[in-house]
Amino acid sequence: MNVIIEISYDGLEYFGWQIQPNKKTVQGEIIKALLSIFKQDIKVIASGRTDTGVSAIKQVANFVVDTFVPAEKIKHLLNDVLPLNIRILKSYETNCAFNARLYAKRKTYGYNFYFGDEENAYYNKFAIYFKKELNIKKMEEACEYLIGTHDFSSFCAAKTSITNKTRTIYSAKILKYENYFQFEITGNGFLYNMIRILMGTLLLVGYEKMSLLEFKNVIESKNRKQAGKTVSPYGLVLKNVEY
Amino acid sequence: MNVIIEISYDGLEYFGWQIQPNKKTVQGEIIKALLSIFKQDIKVIASGRTDTGVSAIKQVANFVVDTFVPAEKIKHLLNDVLPLNIRILKSYETNCAFNARLYAKRKTYGYNFYFGDEENAYYNKFAIYFKKELNIKKMEEACEYLIGTHDFSSFCAAKTSITNKTRTIYSAKILKYENYFQFEITGNGFLYNMIRILMGTLLLVGYEKMSLLEFKNVIESKNRKQAGKTVSPYGLVLKNVEY
Repeated sequence: MNVIIEISYDGLEYFGWQIQPNKKTVQGEIIKALLSIFKQDIKVIASGRTDTGVSAIKQVANFVVDTFVPAEKIKHLLNDVLPLNIRILKSYETNCAFNARLYAKRKTYGYNFYFGDEENAYYNKFAIYFKKELNIKKMEEACEYLIGTHDFSSFCAAKTSITNKTRTIYSAKILKYENYFQFEITGNGFLYNMIRILMGTLLLVGYEKMSLLEFKNVIESKNRKQAGKTVSPYGLVLKNVEY
Repeated sequence: MNVIIEISYDGLEYFGWQIQPNKKTVQGEIIKALLSIFKQDIKVIASGRTDTGVSAIKQVANFVVDTFVPAEKIKHLLNDVLPLNIRILKSYETNCAFNARLYAKRKTYGYNFYFGDEENAYYNKFAIYFKKELNIKKMEEACEYLIGTHDFSSFCAAKTSITNKTRTIYSAKILKYENYFQFEITGNGFLYNMIRILMGTLLLVGYEKMSLLEFKNVIESKNRKQAGKTVSPYGLVLKNVEY
């Protein structure tokens, strides 16, 4: 049986999604939980990896398991043994061909941030603090340039083996939540560190150190060195995966 | 010099605001920090106590200190020694008569919650999960009954020495944030556990176990037994104090 699970996690205490020896990872915890439930070594495929410190409101994964347990009940079995900072939202059967990584059509990420004279201990639970005032309107305008199909080489970490760096962005905007903000972006896929580098470049626009024209040129340059820094992963959350 | 400090804190690891022997409290940490900076035993008065687990986006307190250090710099001195889950947002001098508790005119609290088939590990960082579907519209309607000046005896924990239980509520509403909600309430003051009991009673309305008329009657009954349960403190956050 090929089973889809929808997973939420608080990334704070994990070395990201991907299983690694001697490190606590989300995939590692799920594989361990499945082993304890089904006594089988089960391969779990997510829509994509998330880095150390990145959280998920909804990640999607699938795995093949030999069992008569109804797929819908697997979420309860998993939640009973998983740590509380990983919660399975749903589990259901799918067709044999389904692969959570290959079939993912759209993903939405959010990057939470705020600014002000001092850090706020409450907002720090889920958002990243930037000291200087940001021109949010300018950042919103820059987001418009991201929409569409582009070669995003400028926003890809140097250490990557991927050659096709063209991705389609369906939506990119700055959401306002009372006193903090979220850079929300939906695309057909993202390169390694892409959203964190995009956020680092939007920051330059917000600080008025980079004009909108310069931002546009950064995209077109296809040169990582033209873009801003890779910001902290702790503001990043995977919000949705669509198939 | 009488100094006002604005304080943010993540209540998760604290036994509330008020100093207690052998327990980690926010007031206790601030008094300890002031002692280490000024070598003085300083009395710190907040706008009001917050319970174990309750957070603050902005709490206000004041204290009298003998020093030539400019009031504006005290926030930096405090932030250097305080734990990271307590951050001072501002510090400034005020007149001698000012008392953060007695002079508070309006306070705003938020109670974060969500519902669904399963808990979400990300939302659990700041919100309380309720299993069954809630009729948010009905809860919004019930909020209307809270506005104005009422005797809130029905929503006050039994163990209290306060006799005047009349408070004025300026605003009460349910805010929607993507997939979670916040019951936000502003008043001239709140009784012991009042917001958590109000939330517990609004839940009954949301579950359609209590009609709007019954909710109105609970207020008028001035009887704690008519109201709902006291919900968990971990969803509660002090958002603002006005003077």
